[in-house]
Amino acid sequence: MSDILSELTKILEARKNAADADSSYVASLHQKGLNKILEKVGEECTETIIAAKDAAASGDNAELIGETADLWFHSLVMLSHLGENADSVLAELGRRFNVSGHDEKASRTSH
Amino acid sequence: MSDILSELTKILEARKNAADADSSYVASLHQKGLNKILEKVGEECTETIIAAKDAAASGDNAELIGETADLWFHSLVMLSHLGENADSVLAELGRRFNVSGHDEKASRTSH
Amino acid sequence: MSDILSELTKILEARKNAADADSSYVASLHQKGLNKILEKVGEECTETIIAAKDAAASGDNAELIGETADLWFHSLVMLSHLGENADSVLAELGRRFNVSGHDEKASRTSH
Amino acid sequence: MSDILSELTKILEARKNAADADSSYVASLHQKGLNKILEKVGEECTETIIAAKDAAASGDNAELIGETADLWFHSLVMLSHLGENADSVLAELGRRFNVSGHDEKASRTSH
Repeated sequence: MSDILSELTKILEARKNAADADSSYVASLHQKGLNKILEKVGEECTETIIAAKDAAASGDNAELIGETADLWFHSLVMLSHLGENADSVLAELGRRFNVSGHDEKASRTSH
Repeated sequence: MSDILSELTKILEARKNAADADSSYVASLHQKGLNKILEKVGEECTETIIAAKDAAASGDNAELIGETADLWFHSLVMLSHLGENADSVLAELGRRFNVSGHDEKASRTSH
Repeated sequence: MSDILSELTKILEARKNAADADSSYVASLHQKGLNKILEKVGEECTETIIAAKDAAASGDNAELIGETADLWFHSLVMLSHLGENADSVLAELGRRFNVSGHDEKASRTSH
Repeated sequence: MSDILSELTKILEARKNAADADSSYVASLHQKGLNKILEKVGEECTETIIAAKDAAASGDNAELIGETADLWFHSLVMLSHLGENADSVLAELGRRFNVSGHDEKASRTSH
């Protein structure tokens, strides 16, 4: 499942430099610039928070999943715009929690 | 690298029900409840936006990576609090971009 | 200058119940409901924060003033949607700072 | 009631330059700098949105008023930090809605 993030990162890099901004939402975001991308990050964060309150009240998580996907997606575009990608963030999370994707894979192989 | 997300999801679930909230930041967030968790999501989103503006001006992305990690981490805690996890969000992103972690793995094996 | 807030409050109440939502942005916000109004509050807050970073870098505050006006405006619509108005918020601020509009007026008259 | 905003603006300017940051929350915010002030603006905006959702569900607006007061207060500190104040924002709102505090006062006198 988590390979999706690697695939998505590749897609985002490919679309970053797409010649035709009209054909790609991602390319159009990069052309509009960092402020527009950050506005989207903030907007999707607000929508995630509202969806979480509604999910807690209704028990229906569909909207919450969709808004969180929007939030993560736009934060991936932000990272890409500034020359970073998901790996740097996952490595930081791994460091904090003493988790390494590679070690984990190795230990799975050895069992 | 992206296995870190799977490992982190397991850790978050384990800590969600930790008996001693004092010993775990994650357990203490769950005990304080959804509003506190959402406040943290919003707070880290603001700090991410500020860090992105500073990164664009300075060329130094360290703070940006740290704040995005905080944002993703607290959104994982939010998902966990409402009975979801990263897989639902990654599946939604996969659907939107026609990417499937499993297919991708399969195609890698076949090459 | 601060009477503008009282006037604006009256205008917002009048437009809240405007028969034709198409003719009024305020009426259309109320018809779309609380979530839409809160999304706008969050959106304008993000834009205010970005504008403040840009103002600090450029020395030009025009965008900052415009975005803060948007933020305050949409928070007034939010208050109105929930049956409150600026007076309740100003009274709360007055209490915290031991400032009373009426007392202040009286003391100005007496000097 | 709206004179509270003028009074508060004066208090904020006085405290901006308070010699002893420990004695004043406002002075300590200015000393910590713009990023800290903007973090507070974003934090209070999130808390306002959460409080609005709770107010809509419960019918109790007390928390909403308190959080909106926090949001407006920290946006006033932000304006002050960047050399602006509430008057610039109210003048902008007045322009958009064709409302002028002075004209309004004049028309009140004439009736």
